[in-house]
Amino acid sequence: MDRERLIDLMGEIIPDEKRILTDQADLYSYSYDASFGFFVPDIVVQPKATEEVAKVMKLANQFEIPVYPRGQGTSLSGGPLPVKGGIVLDLSRWDQNLEIDSEDMVAIVSPGVITGNINAKAMEKGLIYPPDPSSSNIATIGGNLAENAGGPRGLKYGVTKDYVIGLEVVTPEGEIIRTGGRTVKNVTGYDLTKLIVGSEGTLGVITEAILRLYPKPASTQTLMALFDDLVDSGRAISKVLNSGILPAKMEIMDQASIQAVEAYRPLGLPTDVEALILIELDGHPMAIADEMLKVQEVCKEVGVREVKVAATSEEAEKLWRARKLVSPAIVRVKPTKISEDATVPRSKIPAMFQRLKEIKDKYNLDLVVFGHAGDGNLHPNIIADKRNQEEMKRVEMAVEEIFTAAIELGGTLSGEHGIGTMKAPFMEMELGEVGLDMMKRIKQSWDPKNILNPGKIFPEIGQRLVLTDE
Amino acid sequence: MDRERLIDLMGEIIPDEKRILTDQADLYSYSYDASFGFFVPDIVVQPKATEEVAKVMKLANQFEIPVYPRGQGTSLSGGPLPVKGGIVLDLSRWDQNLEIDSEDMVAIVSPGVITGNINAKAMEKGLIYPPDPSSSNIATIGGNLAENAGGPRGLKYGVTKDYVIGLEVVTPEGEIIRTGGRTVKNVTGYDLTKLIVGSEGTLGVITEAILRLYPKPASTQTLMALFDDLVDSGRAISKVLNSGILPAKMEIMDQASIQAVEAYRPLGLPTDVEALILIELDGHPMAIADEMLKVQEVCKEVGVREVKVAATSEEAEKLWRARKLVSPAIVRVKPTKISEDATVPRSKIPAMFQRLKEIKDKYNLDLVVFGHAGDGNLHPNIIADKRNQEEMKRVEMAVEEIFTAAIELGGTLSGEHGIGTMKAPFMEMELGEVGLDMMKRIKQSWDPKNILNPGKIFPEIGQRLVLTDE
Repeated sequence: MDRERLIDLMGEIIPDEKRILTDQADLYSYSYDASFGFFVPDIVVQPKATEEVAKVMKLANQFEIPVYPRGQGTSLSGGPLPVKGGIVLDLSRWDQNLEIDSEDMVAIVSPGVITGNINAKAMEKGLIYPPDPSSSNIATIGGNLAENAGGPRGLKYGVTKDYVIGLEVVTPEGEIIRTGGRTVKNVTGYDLTKLIVGSEGTLGVITEAILRLYPKPASTQTLMALFDDLVDSGRAISKVLNSGILPAKMEIMDQASIQAVEAYRPLGLPTDVEALILIELDGHPMAIADEMLKVQEVCKEVGVREVKVAATSEEAEKLWRARKLVSPAIVRVKPTKISEDATVPRSKIPAMFQRLKEIKDKYNLDLVVFGHAGDGNLHPNIIADKRNQEEMKRVEMAVEEIFTAAIELGGTLSGEHGIGTMKAPFMEMELGEVGLDMMKRIKQSWDPKNILNPGKIFPEIGQRLVLTDE
Repeated sequence: MDRERLIDLMGEIIPDEKRILTDQADLYSYSYDASFGFFVPDIVVQPKATEEVAKVMKLANQFEIPVYPRGQGTSLSGGPLPVKGGIVLDLSRWDQNLEIDSEDMVAIVSPGVITGNINAKAMEKGLIYPPDPSSSNIATIGGNLAENAGGPRGLKYGVTKDYVIGLEVVTPEGEIIRTGGRTVKNVTGYDLTKLIVGSEGTLGVITEAILRLYPKPASTQTLMALFDDLVDSGRAISKVLNSGILPAKMEIMDQASIQAVEAYRPLGLPTDVEALILIELDGHPMAIADEMLKVQEVCKEVGVREVKVAATSEEAEKLWRARKLVSPAIVRVKPTKISEDATVPRSKIPAMFQRLKEIKDKYNLDLVVFGHAGDGNLHPNIIADKRNQEEMKRVEMAVEEIFTAAIELGGTLSGEHGIGTMKAPFMEMELGEVGLDMMKRIKQSWDPKNILNPGKIFPEIGQRLVLTDE
């Protein structure tokens, strides 16, 4: 369709012309996310009502125009990239509703609400919204829902999906449905709620969500354990979990991560240890005081070099600073960061570290590993320079080997970042032809014209990972 | 197809003729479950290998024969009933594999394993499998997975689905797929695991499951609170949950339940109280000792008549006996029990009790209410006599009004029993035409010939609830 005509028709749907963006400069700012690639859309609209979204989807179906829903664009896998042009549906302005119902212990939210604000508002009423992706102070809940975002607290509390009990959704064909509701238990028909959460905006546009909240734990405590040997740190993780303790968080940093942090902002961490683990316990103060002693014992049993226990919340914050500084520290080395989230069964963490070391050596790359060790969700990060095409070729090969290693160890391509454009070429490796076909059937039956977020999750014929400008 | 021919072809798939049942007497024992209705299948087979199931499904597709998967037949909604004849796939004999991997904290199970055995075996290694439907000592995990079974511990620990991280599944067309895996975090493509769990055997036959386990809580404590006023008991539930305490269980029994138990096996409970609440706390012993005091305070604040705290595990068991005796007690009154599981948001529990009382009076029925108060999942049970057709007509009307009340209060038709045949006529009332259509599209795309468990979940045109022999 003619672009002028599209703009006119949009004007009939969105009553406020400021919410229809058509300037080249505006379109450019919607052409990328936190992953790779650059795709300029034809038009950007900022809906603030379910009816507006429904009408946009109907229009898009009528004229077969691709629609790309988007929050704040913090995706690491290409989820919001408008790879086939068309319409970007910017939901980040639709943040009007953030209601905490403390009796039903739920939050009702608009798609553009910042995730961190949900937890902050719940805390005022003695409740928590546990999912805590690193981007939670920037990312919208809509994006978190689309990608089923995780985070450190996943170990004890699970991921975004575990907290979603009801949705309002606009289907790819522009119909409005409600799934689930305000009850934690609901087995009425197929679980469309959990199907749509994590479907990366390919099965529907979420216009409202009902999120389960939890009682706020009375107290938290933090501990850092330093290990001379990476394998010992893996054993410590297993032993803690098998001692009957379920920490809220259990994060690991390898030697390269520690060294990068110390080079960037010296915290006084020993750079000759092979790994450090950060553990946060939460719950009743008497319980965690006792559990803290047990964790220290376990660490000593496996040969820890040193354990630091935070006596105050300020000290706890200081210990966590090391983990928070990893990402900014590593991009100081080189400008391009390829952040992966290949996940393995907990028992395979030492083997995965070994495989990652081999890959690093084989391709001679800057590779650091940190992440959510308690649930096997590691973040191998490769640091490179996008302008160095030869290096990026090596990165492509290394990334493919990381995925292969994760799958061979019984793990998965993606623990929490999603498939998007980045991992689509590897889907069949994990799922097999039939498994992938069963997913495609769902997409096809819900979105027969392939209007909603086309080019994501499902590989195109012959598609491969490309990080160079070829 | 000719029945003799079908038996011959089955003989080629199932190598052991004892696992092919064709006698009338055998077929009769597969014609019912714990709900209503009586439907004799043409043949029953007892597969013990994934390949056998795959071949049966391929045969069934070729000749368009309905297939009905079944565990122990404890379904309260008609899930396994062979309503269109054909093949019953009895998976209850396939219980060979029950492996606990304490390092990955998972159980790997065959579909015929008894649910209670999973928890028992996990406990030996200091772990638990939390879902605890009342039938857990009889029902198979396959049936629990198909129906997404709940139970009292759902309040704190969630339901079956929350523990399933990987499946092996035979599709309706006889292909074998694997979904998820051994990692807690997995966002690779659509979440087929959570789609299949709770799909009531209409989207695939589960041949293996990987279940997440949790550290075993160090200690448990039980408390019973007796209330003169039902509304006060509702307020107590809310206040406990808002005080930062999340009990493992929080069950309610109304006056009629208490009276039925006392008439059946006197436990010395006062029959003039309007409600009693049973609370189980679990966790660190020091934490729950403290929480126990807080719960008692809260109960006093809302005007409890009496609180009984169990000092020993024997005393705890004695308090729980009241709850366990409800079901056997009420069937002594009249032989036919219609057990519902309409679920409402927690804040609507007092309103739901009021609506149930009105329905009971309007239709002059024996109706008792008990259930999982903490998560709004009540079990209104109507006691009647199937032979009294006039009474059963009144039951039909009352059941319909119970569903209407639950939905009007923002709840759902079914919290944990499933839709099956019993609730199919009411699906559109909750989901709307489009919502139901989106579910049908998935079924149609996976099972185009409607081979797997036809006649369930989706209402046939004009279908209504029939409990009489009309």
